[in-house]
Amino acid sequence: MTRTVLASATKEVVIGFDQPFCVIGERINPTGRKKLAEAMKVGDYSMVQADALAQVAAGATMLDVNAGIPLADEPRILAETIQLVQSLVDVPLSIDSSIIDALEAGLGVYQGRPLVNSVTGEEESLERVLPLVKKHDAAVVAISNDETGISEDPEVRYAVAKKIAERAEDHGISRQDVVVDPLVMPIGAMGTAGTQAFRLIRKLREELKVNTTCGASNISFGLPNRHVVNAHFLSMAACAGMTSAIMNPLHSEEMNGTRAANMLNALDPDCRAWLSANREGGAGGGEAPREGRRGGREGRRRGGAA
Amino acid sequence: MTRTVLASATKEVVIGFDQPFCVIGERINPTGRKKLAEAMKVGDYSMVQADALAQVAAGATMLDVNAGIPLADEPRILAETIQLVQSLVDVPLSIDSSIIDALEAGLGVYQGRPLVNSVTGEEESLERVLPLVKKHDAAVVAISNDETGISEDPEVRYAVAKKIAERAEDHGISRQDVVVDPLVMPIGAMGTAGTQAFRLIRKLREELKVNTTCGASNISFGLPNRHVVNAHFLSMAACAGMTSAIMNPLHSEEMNGTRAANMLNALDPDCRAWLSANREGGAGGGEAPREGRRGGREGRRRGGAA
Repeated sequence: MTRTVLASATKEVVIGFDQPFCVIGERINPTGRKKLAEAMKVGDYSMVQADALAQVAAGATMLDVNAGIPLADEPRILAETIQLVQSLVDVPLSIDSSIIDALEAGLGVYQGRPLVNSVTGEEESLERVLPLVKKHDAAVVAISNDETGISEDPEVRYAVAKKIAERAEDHGISRQDVVVDPLVMPIGAMGTAGTQAFRLIRKLREELKVNTTCGASNISFGLPNRHVVNAHFLSMAACAGMTSAIMNPLHSEEMNGTRAANMLNALDPDCRAWLSANREGGAGGGEAPREGRRGGREGRRRGGAA
Repeated sequence: MTRTVLASATKEVVIGFDQPFCVIGERINPTGRKKLAEAMKVGDYSMVQADALAQVAAGATMLDVNAGIPLADEPRILAETIQLVQSLVDVPLSIDSSIIDALEAGLGVYQGRPLVNSVTGEEESLERVLPLVKKHDAAVVAISNDETGISEDPEVRYAVAKKIAERAEDHGISRQDVVVDPLVMPIGAMGTAGTQAFRLIRKLREELKVNTTCGASNISFGLPNRHVVNAHFLSMAACAGMTSAIMNPLHSEEMNGTRAANMLNALDPDCRAWLSANREGGAGGGEAPREGRRGGREGRRRGGAA
């Protein structure tokens, strides 16, 4: 049973086939958020603070932290952000950068066991990121692209993921600590983006036996009613075997998608999390069951079985 | 490629692995709807009329018609209801009764190729319903229970479905014309109801190669925020391979669940149905994509691929 164990200073979280879906809050990321970028650049972390608290309050299992700001001192800012976030909330973090020095600075100050986000199949990335992951006894997100870019062929993406997992093992990193991102394309641009992702997720789980994650909202890029598309992508991907996603926990559609998926995947005993979030007056908005209307077709058929 | 062809007097509909999810409207059913039962009993079909028009307007692919009213002349009422509905809307019908005489009366007046709902694995049902289905060249819903009731073991339910499909073949009914209902239990009563259903649906599709359907709303019986649970059950079941459901098309959550599933299962070319239902001002409520917020994580990574 594959289990990726992450930790804050005091609390462990497990991503795993037998675990509720791991919601990795995506908000602390200045890419495309101009105000946040400007604030972080001058050392104003008030928005980071608000995002950290709100995401955990909304049910995030972990938080992704990214400090990718053009022409800024990313290693310093990432380290400061991680220290601040760890002082505010008690969830493990995903340290997110494409710059090795920033990952190193983040790992240097992190308390616990983080997820390093990310390594790709490119030779330079493999040889620079994996030793860092091993040195700090972290887990790592493996993105299934390499020097040739992102293949549109899911078999090639699977092969890249396999190469990364094997190289990680060469560096002494267990396969349990490699969380593969199969790379989700926008469905509006590629009609097979969903079926590709589901097939690849299933194969990664059944054959490579790794946990999986993705940037979920990419699927709905350019479409109307995005949150509903994201929500169904998440529950369908969870049905196919995906175990985590980097997503926005502040939207109730997406969060209820992961909660419904947990319940329907038998990962929410006695529907406790669903009930807690969706009782009347609960976060998700409650609704009394309309018992009088149902039970017709099913009631007649089921007899005493249910 | 499994295809169950149904027809109204003039229009064909296909349930199939390569087809958009078939939404069978459940509303014309007096079970548990006291007012509707009383009206139908005295020959007042105004509610039936309204339900027929509203469901088709909301996007139902087919309509289920049931006239199960205690102490009423079900064969006559079912036949009258079918004639009325066929005069109003141009979609194929599912003729729904547990009474053979009522099925026979309904088949007698039906124009086109209907779905007979249903046959079970019980000997009497098999020997009385299947000849009727063959005689009228109809398709049939096969419910996976038998004399011993509904097994909690999905393998037993699979075996019952297999027995029905084989018996149907003995009667000259093609496997393509057997749509199996794996029987969905309430998740609040049985924590494995979802995983059981998904596993069984996948097996029915991959091994028995049949289309599948179910009474979808049963999954959420007793829970708050039922429509969202139903919606995610539908999209997850569609991800596992389910091709139709008897459901309420008047709820936007469930309908958007099936639409999202079609899109993500590559069964909605160019997202046309999604866009049509969800454009600003469209039925599902529109929302402009927030392009400025996205593209960060994914944009940086994907480069020019998408």
